[in-house]
Amino acid sequence: MTDAIDFYFDFSSPYGYLAAERIEAVIAPFEREIRWRPILLGAAFKTTGNKPLVDQPLKGDYTLHDLDRLARFQQVPWVVPDPFPIATVRAARGFYWIDDQDPAAAVTFAKAVYRAYFGEGRNISEPDVVDGIAADLGHDREAFAAAVSSPEIKERLRNEVEASIERGVFGSPYMIVDGEPFWGADRFWMIKRWLKSGGW
Amino acid sequence: MTDAIDFYFDFSSPYGYLAAERIEAVIAPFEREIRWRPILLGAAFKTTGNKPLVDQPLKGDYTLHDLDRLARFQQVPWVVPDPFPIATVRAARGFYWIDDQDPAAAVTFAKAVYRAYFGEGRNISEPDVVDGIAADLGHDREAFAAAVSSPEIKERLRNEVEASIERGVFGSPYMIVDGEPFWGADRFWMIKRWLKSGGW
Repeated sequence: MTDAIDFYFDFSSPYGYLAAERIEAVIAPFEREIRWRPILLGAAFKTTGNKPLVDQPLKGDYTLHDLDRLARFQQVPWVVPDPFPIATVRAARGFYWIDDQDPAAAVTFAKAVYRAYFGEGRNISEPDVVDGIAADLGHDREAFAAAVSSPEIKERLRNEVEASIERGVFGSPYMIVDGEPFWGADRFWMIKRWLKSGGW
Repeated sequence: MTDAIDFYFDFSSPYGYLAAERIEAVIAPFEREIRWRPILLGAAFKTTGNKPLVDQPLKGDYTLHDLDRLARFQQVPWVVPDPFPIATVRAARGFYWIDDQDPAAAVTFAKAVYRAYFGEGRNISEPDVVDGIAADLGHDREAFAAAVSSPEIKERLRNEVEASIERGVFGSPYMIVDGEPFWGADRFWMIKRWLKSGGW
């Protein structure tokens, strides 16, 4: 019962952002490794027929209100970014390039990307923004830019997305704990109880 | 800050059932009245483009698994009813007929209807089943059957559904606390904090 916890998220997912800001503190008492796994939900949305939350009447208004109060509750910076949603393929590829060298640095990069988009409203679909975040964290900007265009990293991300769909991941955030799936930033209470009891 | 809490639910909603089993215990410490409001989500689904959860690939499997573990966690009886989902208009109309005479008896009726469907798998779209539940609780069976077919009760339910849509209700369960909306059986933690602090 000491396997890593898989943490799937899409860089365009606001609830993924809130989960990313919180997951380390929640899991810390249980001394479990967290495997951060950015994915692209577009493929899963084609399977489920879902649309991004804010594109749905009524539900969209509720979601914007809910995100605002949750961000206040978690005391994290929050803006409604424009444009939203966006393509986050470059950020996700960049993550895996860093992850292959240094998983902890990749987590730092993921949190910086999320903060830039949902905390400051910077457009992380723009190559300059993503490459700049990597450079600010000490990564070689040209090597980063070359890597995210390489066939190896493109395939790496494709494989991660396919693997996530095979595991049933259809939303963000989506956590898998000892094979048990938890969907949503509001399920941390359940993960905590599950980790404490080993199921119920 | 002592207004009633509005509790919207659809008798065909499994998360509504789990919320109905729990809401009184959660709210008891705050000494707030709970106004139970069965609605029909079909009209809201037309607005949002949503489908019942279990009709969605991937998400449906997750949902069935999630309901099973939540029911175990809450220690309430749980079966996957067949057929599902169903028309619950008779149960909802019957609720309001009882509610107009005795709100506490209507809550008892609502919980019995939910238990019959999600706890025992009885088909509550059948008039005999719904009328039988009312009769078992001491209501006059013929008066109940006549009431649920009356223009007054039909209009009463229609008005409740329209009012819920105007207030933004798009799912079940959906709770409104001092104007603040909370969607989902997994948001009770948030309602508790909200009631304790009066917002945050």
